[in-house]
Amino acid sequence: MGYSALPLTKLIEQFASLPGIGMKTAQRLAFYVLTLSDDEAKAFSDAILEAHEKIKNCEICKNFTDKPICDICADKLRDHSVICVVEDAKDVAAFERTREYKGVYHVLHGLISPMDGIGPDQLYIKALLDRIAEEDVKEVIMATNPTVEGEATAMYISRLLKPLGIKTSRLAFGIPVGSSLEYADEMTLFKALENRSEI
Amino acid sequence: MGYSALPLTKLIEQFASLPGIGMKTAQRLAFYVLTLSDDEAKAFSDAILEAHEKIKNCEICKNFTDKPICDICADKLRDHSVICVVEDAKDVAAFERTREYKGVYHVLHGLISPMDGIGPDQLYIKALLDRIAEEDVKEVIMATNPTVEGEATAMYISRLLKPLGIKTSRLAFGIPVGSSLEYADEMTLFKALENRSEI
Repeated sequence: MGYSALPLTKLIEQFASLPGIGMKTAQRLAFYVLTLSDDEAKAFSDAILEAHEKIKNCEICKNFTDKPICDICADKLRDHSVICVVEDAKDVAAFERTREYKGVYHVLHGLISPMDGIGPDQLYIKALLDRIAEEDVKEVIMATNPTVEGEATAMYISRLLKPLGIKTSRLAFGIPVGSSLEYADEMTLFKALENRSEI
Repeated sequence: MGYSALPLTKLIEQFASLPGIGMKTAQRLAFYVLTLSDDEAKAFSDAILEAHEKIKNCEICKNFTDKPICDICADKLRDHSVICVVEDAKDVAAFERTREYKGVYHVLHGLISPMDGIGPDQLYIKALLDRIAEEDVKEVIMATNPTVEGEATAMYISRLLKPLGIKTSRLAFGIPVGSSLEYADEMTLFKALENRSEI
């Protein structure tokens, strides 16, 4: 990079190793860190270590938490008979932002993807089945992304659940709220037509 | 953000405080940090502290360095009579990548910008004058960006240097190598015409 200072090069390389951060951005971020106060730099450094040490998967739903069982699973007011199955913890945060969903979650930590060598055993699918065997679950909502991998994973899990007599559902596909029909792709329009509802 | 885990929220906020990093990216980066091994997380955390502690401004040219005097200023093979004045350390790295420039640098750490309340006193302009008074300097190349602030700073410094009888030069403006005329703006085309050279 043309920097003679080794600690700076090291920091740039650390930033560049993050996903979606190229060399130019890494350089910009590293230079910014140099402008921080001592306390701010310490806080940043500590936040990395602390999050890395303390954040584990919830024993029940596998969502990120700093307790053995996450706040959502520990919440008695939530409906523990409805489980929303998602790809990762970001999706839990997205559903929580709606403030409408009152059930609990199950985080798979990935999707089935033979292309990337990820099979069902690398995901928390068995943990989901164990959970269903132990708890009184009425419905499992498959809330994986509408991609090839997301669809395949949803299909795979729903087939495992069918013999257990548990209702499995899938998120609705259709036109996003506030978008324009003009920009919707054919598949989305087809799904929106197919799943039309009476007004 | 809908995360119940405080250490995770803290780390996301730290990333989001970096320039050009929004909440979504901060979230992605924080989640990535959780997937690192203990050693990797420690290395990242240490790199921030170490760079912040050890990187200082070179006593001569104000470039970032972990020594009192940077490698470029300490290099006896370089031409210390030519000083290339740049806005920040990123620009030094850019010139060094050309492997053609053999002179030394002076890093201003900013540009004169009355809009942002940055006057000549906040930059290392006095340090440049002191340096010129002490050393045998033949030429000062103003290599600030071709923006309003860059031009103003170049003009300001060149006026200070003129009475001292030191040759000051400015980077050439013209069509970038490998670009298309079609996309060049009027000002660049005008400069390219004006500064045309015989072939």
